[in-house]
Amino acid sequence: MKLVTYALDGAEHVGVMTDEGIIPLSILNSDMPDEMHAVVAGGSVLLNQIADAIIASSPTPLDPTDVALLAPFPRPRRNVFCVGKNYYAHAREFEVSGFDSSSAGQQIPEVPIIFTKATTSVVGSGDTVESALDPTGSVDYEGELAVVIGTGGRGINSTDAMKHVYGYTIINDVTSRDIQRQHKQWFLGKSMDTFCPMGPVITTADELHDIRSIQLTTRVNGEVRQNASVKDLIFDIPRLIETLSKSMTLEPGDLIATGTPAGVGIGFTPPRYLQPGDHVEVEISGIGVLANPIG
Amino acid sequence: MKLVTYALDGAEHVGVMTDEGIIPLSILNSDMPDEMHAVVAGGSVLLNQIADAIIASSPTPLDPTDVALLAPFPRPRRNVFCVGKNYYAHAREFEVSGFDSSSAGQQIPEVPIIFTKATTSVVGSGDTVESALDPTGSVDYEGELAVVIGTGGRGINSTDAMKHVYGYTIINDVTSRDIQRQHKQWFLGKSMDTFCPMGPVITTADELHDIRSIQLTTRVNGEVRQNASVKDLIFDIPRLIETLSKSMTLEPGDLIATGTPAGVGIGFTPPRYLQPGDHVEVEISGIGVLANPIG
Repeated sequence: MKLVTYALDGAEHVGVMTDEGIIPLSILNSDMPDEMHAVVAGGSVLLNQIADAIIASSPTPLDPTDVALLAPFPRPRRNVFCVGKNYYAHAREFEVSGFDSSSAGQQIPEVPIIFTKATTSVVGSGDTVESALDPTGSVDYEGELAVVIGTGGRGINSTDAMKHVYGYTIINDVTSRDIQRQHKQWFLGKSMDTFCPMGPVITTADELHDIRSIQLTTRVNGEVRQNASVKDLIFDIPRLIETLSKSMTLEPGDLIATGTPAGVGIGFTPPRYLQPGDHVEVEISGIGVLANPIG
Repeated sequence: MKLVTYALDGAEHVGVMTDEGIIPLSILNSDMPDEMHAVVAGGSVLLNQIADAIIASSPTPLDPTDVALLAPFPRPRRNVFCVGKNYYAHAREFEVSGFDSSSAGQQIPEVPIIFTKATTSVVGSGDTVESALDPTGSVDYEGELAVVIGTGGRGINSTDAMKHVYGYTIINDVTSRDIQRQHKQWFLGKSMDTFCPMGPVITTADELHDIRSIQLTTRVNGEVRQNASVKDLIFDIPRLIETLSKSMTLEPGDLIATGTPAGVGIGFTPPRYLQPGDHVEVEISGIGVLANPIG
């Protein structure tokens, strides 16, 4: 199932994205939650209820062009967890670029590198990334698969970890490279308003059984810049969940952006930063295309 | 005014801490907000209403020993923003310790170093810091003054910044030094459950006009370990607010832990890590004492 958050008449709602359009949860059953954190907290029981209700009522879907699609979580309940240098080829290009002020000379990390993006940086597919917010003019893209946590917990073992995955979405971990480098810790360079495009949908885990086989492609103005398979992650999803939850309680709706593959702007010489007028698309098979203009 | 969040009969409430006890906002006026984010969003208008209502109704305060004091924000709406290496003497001791994997050899930072702590790490004064959650046994204290943002905004100038400060509290930025070092980015080593003691109160800004003059003292089992003046911050509060809000919108209730002075455990040779049975107190004049046992 593909879930979306959308705005209609000034209010936010959750719906199911189908080939025919968006089915609002609120028309299926007035008792159903209508906010994504609450839907995720409902788990597979609620997903089954939604599926049954769609079959039973044959609702008329909304035309997606009649609503404003938002990020699946327009306002996450806490910062988005992100993984740095989690594809081999990207770890090498980042080290060579000279922008990784915190590597201490280590190209391939021995343990996952975790940082966060501010909740206020989240925007939806189609929304403009405001490049002028980076005074250094070093805006770069990072297409990433993001995991949505369903059941939370602490001390989750990698062997049990996939049971805690509710679904997947796409995140573009937009970054100011100069701010990332200057401030050593990456938070500020990753957290400018509009620098976390997310969406367009959450695909529930039952629809993406073989997550390792899926492909991620990033295009800038139609030119393919990143093209990689999730199986090439240095630390795979079970390992990331185990690491994050080892001493910190994960919660329903937590988001883990799993890292970006090779092909970012600073991988080129000279760096190819994003400019106003550019158009970035991140496509992941089974989820969709996260498309954002650069303003 | 000193504001507290407390639990009574299983529910959370906000009250005013006075010499006579805690005055629950809910007994002053049933329309008053009873959750700290909502109280902060009410700004100085609400604070004046509270003060007037206390004078008008002369309420009987609760005995603080009859309630459970919680962190002022038991569950912040997003991660706690923290500043690294923001006192000269601490920046030197941290560099010399060998634990700063992201300094790139730079002892005194040229710009503020910003990272975050997870919302789930927050506990109140009196709560136990669970040192066993750090498998490396390298738990360290960091007493810090924390700023509570009142009016949010983006692009806040340092000259206007103090108008955005609602008040102050104390944070102990408890850290696993080995996890902080191994993972390069500091988030994980700072975000273990119970590793963010906060409180005991928020002192509103009108009661702490000369914030630069206040003194911070950290004691471990009664022994003074940190003793510094806020005027020794490398980047002062206006500069921190300007830096954080430059491209990221600050929101009411955001918390900025301003950095820790010299005297942390890794400043000693060998390091003096916290052990089960230890008792850590962080005292800031005008706010109070944040006291936590180590379990």
